[in-house]
Amino acid sequence: MSEIRDLSLKDEGKRKIDWVRSYMPALGGIECEFERDKPFKGRKIAISIHLEAKTARLALALRSGGAEVHVTGCNPLATHDDVAAALVDMGFEVNAWRGATAGEYERHLVNTLACSPDIILDDGGDLTNLLHGTCADKRLSLIGGTEETTTGVHRLRARAAAGELKFPVIAANDAKCKHLFDNRYGTGQSTWDAIMHTTNVMVTGKRVVVAGYGYCGRGVAARAKGLGADVVVTEVDPVCALEALMDGYRVMPMDEAAPIGDFFITVTGCNRVITARHLERMRDGVILCNAGHFDVEIDKNDLNALAVEVIDRRLNIQGFRMADGRILNLLAEGRLVNLASGNGHPAEIMDMSFAIQALCLRYLSEHGAGLSPGVYDVPADIDGRVGRVKLAAMGMKIDTLTEEQEAYLAAY
Amino acid sequence: MSEIRDLSLKDEGKRKIDWVRSYMPALGGIECEFERDKPFKGRKIAISIHLEAKTARLALALRSGGAEVHVTGCNPLATHDDVAAALVDMGFEVNAWRGATAGEYERHLVNTLACSPDIILDDGGDLTNLLHGTCADKRLSLIGGTEETTTGVHRLRARAAAGELKFPVIAANDAKCKHLFDNRYGTGQSTWDAIMHTTNVMVTGKRVVVAGYGYCGRGVAARAKGLGADVVVTEVDPVCALEALMDGYRVMPMDEAAPIGDFFITVTGCNRVITARHLERMRDGVILCNAGHFDVEIDKNDLNALAVEVIDRRLNIQGFRMADGRILNLLAEGRLVNLASGNGHPAEIMDMSFAIQALCLRYLSEHGAGLSPGVYDVPADIDGRVGRVKLAAMGMKIDTLTEEQEAYLAAY
Amino acid sequence: MSEIRDLSLKDEGKRKIDWVRSYMPALGGIECEFERDKPFKGRKIAISIHLEAKTARLALALRSGGAEVHVTGCNPLATHDDVAAALVDMGFEVNAWRGATAGEYERHLVNTLACSPDIILDDGGDLTNLLHGTCADKRLSLIGGTEETTTGVHRLRARAAAGELKFPVIAANDAKCKHLFDNRYGTGQSTWDAIMHTTNVMVTGKRVVVAGYGYCGRGVAARAKGLGADVVVTEVDPVCALEALMDGYRVMPMDEAAPIGDFFITVTGCNRVITARHLERMRDGVILCNAGHFDVEIDKNDLNALAVEVIDRRLNIQGFRMADGRILNLLAEGRLVNLASGNGHPAEIMDMSFAIQALCLRYLSEHGAGLSPGVYDVPADIDGRVGRVKLAAMGMKIDTLTEEQEAYLAAY
Amino acid sequence: MSEIRDLSLKDEGKRKIDWVRSYMPALGGIECEFERDKPFKGRKIAISIHLEAKTARLALALRSGGAEVHVTGCNPLATHDDVAAALVDMGFEVNAWRGATAGEYERHLVNTLACSPDIILDDGGDLTNLLHGTCADKRLSLIGGTEETTTGVHRLRARAAAGELKFPVIAANDAKCKHLFDNRYGTGQSTWDAIMHTTNVMVTGKRVVVAGYGYCGRGVAARAKGLGADVVVTEVDPVCALEALMDGYRVMPMDEAAPIGDFFITVTGCNRVITARHLERMRDGVILCNAGHFDVEIDKNDLNALAVEVIDRRLNIQGFRMADGRILNLLAEGRLVNLASGNGHPAEIMDMSFAIQALCLRYLSEHGAGLSPGVYDVPADIDGRVGRVKLAAMGMKIDTLTEEQEAYLAAY
Repeated sequence: MSEIRDLSLKDEGKRKIDWVRSYMPALGGIECEFERDKPFKGRKIAISIHLEAKTARLALALRSGGAEVHVTGCNPLATHDDVAAALVDMGFEVNAWRGATAGEYERHLVNTLACSPDIILDDGGDLTNLLHGTCADKRLSLIGGTEETTTGVHRLRARAAAGELKFPVIAANDAKCKHLFDNRYGTGQSTWDAIMHTTNVMVTGKRVVVAGYGYCGRGVAARAKGLGADVVVTEVDPVCALEALMDGYRVMPMDEAAPIGDFFITVTGCNRVITARHLERMRDGVILCNAGHFDVEIDKNDLNALAVEVIDRRLNIQGFRMADGRILNLLAEGRLVNLASGNGHPAEIMDMSFAIQALCLRYLSEHGAGLSPGVYDVPADIDGRVGRVKLAAMGMKIDTLTEEQEAYLAAY
Repeated sequence: MSEIRDLSLKDEGKRKIDWVRSYMPALGGIECEFERDKPFKGRKIAISIHLEAKTARLALALRSGGAEVHVTGCNPLATHDDVAAALVDMGFEVNAWRGATAGEYERHLVNTLACSPDIILDDGGDLTNLLHGTCADKRLSLIGGTEETTTGVHRLRARAAAGELKFPVIAANDAKCKHLFDNRYGTGQSTWDAIMHTTNVMVTGKRVVVAGYGYCGRGVAARAKGLGADVVVTEVDPVCALEALMDGYRVMPMDEAAPIGDFFITVTGCNRVITARHLERMRDGVILCNAGHFDVEIDKNDLNALAVEVIDRRLNIQGFRMADGRILNLLAEGRLVNLASGNGHPAEIMDMSFAIQALCLRYLSEHGAGLSPGVYDVPADIDGRVGRVKLAAMGMKIDTLTEEQEAYLAAY
Repeated sequence: MSEIRDLSLKDEGKRKIDWVRSYMPALGGIECEFERDKPFKGRKIAISIHLEAKTARLALALRSGGAEVHVTGCNPLATHDDVAAALVDMGFEVNAWRGATAGEYERHLVNTLACSPDIILDDGGDLTNLLHGTCADKRLSLIGGTEETTTGVHRLRARAAAGELKFPVIAANDAKCKHLFDNRYGTGQSTWDAIMHTTNVMVTGKRVVVAGYGYCGRGVAARAKGLGADVVVTEVDPVCALEALMDGYRVMPMDEAAPIGDFFITVTGCNRVITARHLERMRDGVILCNAGHFDVEIDKNDLNALAVEVIDRRLNIQGFRMADGRILNLLAEGRLVNLASGNGHPAEIMDMSFAIQALCLRYLSEHGAGLSPGVYDVPADIDGRVGRVKLAAMGMKIDTLTEEQEAYLAAY
Repeated sequence: MSEIRDLSLKDEGKRKIDWVRSYMPALGGIECEFERDKPFKGRKIAISIHLEAKTARLALALRSGGAEVHVTGCNPLATHDDVAAALVDMGFEVNAWRGATAGEYERHLVNTLACSPDIILDDGGDLTNLLHGTCADKRLSLIGGTEETTTGVHRLRARAAAGELKFPVIAANDAKCKHLFDNRYGTGQSTWDAIMHTTNVMVTGKRVVVAGYGYCGRGVAARAKGLGADVVVTEVDPVCALEALMDGYRVMPMDEAAPIGDFFITVTGCNRVITARHLERMRDGVILCNAGHFDVEIDKNDLNALAVEVIDRRLNIQGFRMADGRILNLLAEGRLVNLASGNGHPAEIMDMSFAIQALCLRYLSEHGAGLSPGVYDVPADIDGRVGRVKLAAMGMKIDTLTEEQEAYLAAY
């Protein structure tokens, strides 16, 4: 039984789903194969991922492959209620709505697991967590799962290292066709799309502080530079810091960046990257937002503790007035700004990520039964296959090694 | 008497106006002077310009200077109904609503001129046109006007060359602090903000065709490159074409660009830049939009004539289905995409443009009475002054020539 | 009678001239016309400009047009002795050698003017200066001249403003096909070519301070950014400073830039841009160089006064050891680094600049007799013509306005 | 006993070595430790690597650590004869000269191995190859070696896979502080430094074809774009091709790139990337060069077979005249252009690479005796240490994880 906001929004949701279909040709091709082969016949798949139009396309592709798909979100602010309505109208069980409270959010996840899934698709690790805790009884028929994001993979590896992981999970995030593209180009574009649209302030000529120079941080920094900003990177890893420097950015500790930045974007996967110490030194009118998985990178407790007033400034912008009169503006409550105050990643990027997911889920359905608990790499041929399919879908041609060249490369 | 859509939207409009105030410090400083000097005491000013939050700030500044301000828009799709409501609530006469028909649009302009303004602020030349035609009787007390945009200045010069211009107009667009910034960085950012938000498709790795390499085109091209696109420029001027080439873009005629582009953005100031001949050769799924003043650059008659069906795809996206099945997507009905499907230029950019406007309007109020009809440059000291005010507002310092250096530069 | 370094270098000089010929097609086309029309029949032309391979191509083109060409340099360190030798071998009178002392340099100019030229081509204004002073008697048959560079035009305008200019001069520098290309893209590439080759130090990740954001400074800054540097711009003009900021650079006074820069490149046209006050605050190992016309931008007197030792570090690098042990490295004695320690502008850029020069010289030869003293713009059709010729030489096509579009643009 | 070109060049060589010392602080710090600890006491080290000033600094550092260092080059055109002379004058045994024939080159390597080294440093694998063949008898006291370059590591892995590798080798190339920096930023800058200086032709506005989008190719492409070129990438790997596309480059097969390119730079590690089929379609005046390890990427046999004449155009430029009159220009005989016609990588980059090498060599000296044959990763702490040392040498500070953050990251 579904729990969504408003079924009457279904038509706009369907239009959104139809729109992105045009820009997701790789997943479309895989859907055709699924239609033919029915690799998920008899399988129940639970998916917990940002519930918007591209995700709906994935759910449809899985159903075309014979799966019974149960859908929930992975972030209370990232759900598009119109897309959720469309999915329900098309016969899916959906549990999600935008702006869910912590309690509602957990209920939605628990309800989704109620089907005792054969396979799960997780984004950030919340489903996985429940399956190791209060929903452990829903693991009965579980073959395994996939994990979409860096943070989720990080949590899985920590759990596996502690010997606590109870089923096999494929680290979809770590596929080249996922993290090299989704994390960099997807996060880069969607984060700035969201910031510009939410704020209508200038990026050109401004000082943008990007905390974290992993793959997502690289994308955010590259687009900031492309928009004409003076970009400052903060890091904890010396090699990443040197790369940021050589990529043309300034590098400094957050303590030095805090008083000079105009925009602050956290994308580290860590907590308390911006705390009271930094907030106290920031300039009036700064824009704070987060593009990391959890809303812990900018410390909201510290923000609230320092504020004498919280002002509703514009849609998705809260102003925190400090005792000295400065206003610090927080976008989307510190949640993933590109999803909570935007459309999420561009369709063509999710086309690659979800092509990886679709093939990993098929792999689990067909070969997962024998796997012992652990974190698994994406099977190697899946990456190459998605790369080739995507190139073909874009009409691009590349060179092929001749036999003579193969021989040269094999010699020593 | 005002004619707007819905007064109940006023609170959201006020929030928007309040938000941009924080990012428009130069205009804020000028408003303080106006408050003190009342340079517009007894003057009626009619303004016809994209009616959104930044424009409201300008109207407020003029009123602080003693003016009675009558407000209308300059583009049927660019009006923000909530801002219009806020202005009415604050006591302005406003005639504008989003989605006005051609007839409604003209009525709004005519009603605005009914006050027989002392000074006008025009954007694109529609007020000016009426004052030379059906509203010529409203010129009785007219001192002169200012013109905001390249297209409007172009029309004024053509009219003046024909000996038909009946009052003095200052070409505000041609101020360095206007066109070097607003046209390039403003149009660049706001156009891509609008395109990305409206479509949610990838820019990175796509082929973007920018028609026109004037100041606006430069901005649109630079940001496309900054977002990772392969940018193609079309031009009619050989020197501009060479500059585009040396700025790192590909240059070719539209006939060659049509079959390879993914996005087409017209920003030429001319009509029929994209016509049936080009539409017939475009790929399925292309995105067409315009960032030039009038909706004549992409020929909508040709689009409609070729289409077998027009589909409502997403908010502000129409799909034109061709007989061969291709769908060509047009944003915002071919009107200025950054205004009709976005927030318009960033606040800090309009801060400079409207600082120029505010000082030009003051100049007209104080010195315009003696001017004969014609197109006038912005008084030189206004440009330098806005530059210095803006630098100061941003907390930036620069060098000053020493006397020794002044002497060196004066020698030969 | 020629005065050069070593005639035996002629073969390498000829190879250099032959090499650049391949990359100067626009000048090549004009040379063919000159060959046919002989517009300079009976004319003596004195040219004072950086004497390297591209200049030799211009001299050859003028001779093909019937001129008797007398050649000298305009910068003691920019002369290529092999090219000078080649020109002498081909029958030109040449007075120039690399490393000329101030006295030798002036003698070379005076000897060149000894022919009593009909027309001069000047770069920086030294020939012009002599013709108003000690060589005023060589003006007898002078029709007029052209001036190649911003600094020279600046001096001419100052002289004209003082009522002291005695003959007409065309400001070739101000042609769009000259300063928009030569000053930006030419100076940008050649300056960094020279710096990288002379020093072999990293640009990526370094702080580069560019003094002056005119056309040359823009080119130097753009290439520094393209090489991965963190670029700081210093300026005295507020509007240029704002443009630099919005182009993505940091802007600050030289006093603040001095202690943080790794490279300092002056390109202002002014003197004493870097003085003792700045030198005292610089870091050990900084690289100082100049890309402005005269060697006065970095104050060499101050450098010498502060130094306890001057070290010959590498070819074209002097190290000035400060009392505290820091070494400040000066390239090419503070003269135009791209010419004194490099190959000068790329051939294709000089192709445009010298196409402008060739056509201006022809204009003077054919129409200059009636001109009164003063500084003249390049005749308008020359700019458009060079633009079209260059596009054609590169095999590029662009659009043409239709009659319908012409009519649209003429309407109001 | 040394075999070099000309001992009298030693002073210029010493100046070059002294110059780069200032820009290699990380290696300088390690040299101080070596001086103190003498980790190479009693060891003979044979190094075969591009013999220029930065390499001399490494040799000096190793000697400071107690080693007896025997030096040869690894590329016949990359040896700087003045640096070789300086090393001999400082007491090293050196076998190398610029322009060595194939026979001379092998003799130099063989003579260098005559010392029966304890450790070797190889670049490209030629020393290693000899030690598995004609010089196998010199392996008697060999502990192991390091390998500097991608190509060398590739050969080693092929040899190891065939079970033929006879001693342990550390893949220094694969250290993050090596390949992420040296291969990208080093190759990028030095390749364009060399091309611009050798040719003096424009890069801006030209079509640059980069064959190969590995780490070196990324650097070459990024700098080409930064210089204003339209960059085309060719690849054989779909994922690398997609990355190139999303990084803003055009991607196509070499067959399509051949007729449109102005510059062709091969950097694949494979042979016959450009062959007769491509040469036949290239435009007149193209510039061909290679930045891969061996001179096999552009097929010189094909070039010679097609040419009706080979012309000596400028220093390091040969022109191959085709039967139809086109001239194809080859730089530096198709050898590594940045070394054979330039100064090699910037000093600061080699500072990192050689810091890695120095610490790997120390590791071998202290811990290598027990290693079985095979290809080894750089010990993990070496990478982090070089990163921290380099940051400190540049005066950069970064953030450190708090205990609270460490705990957060360890949780799941």
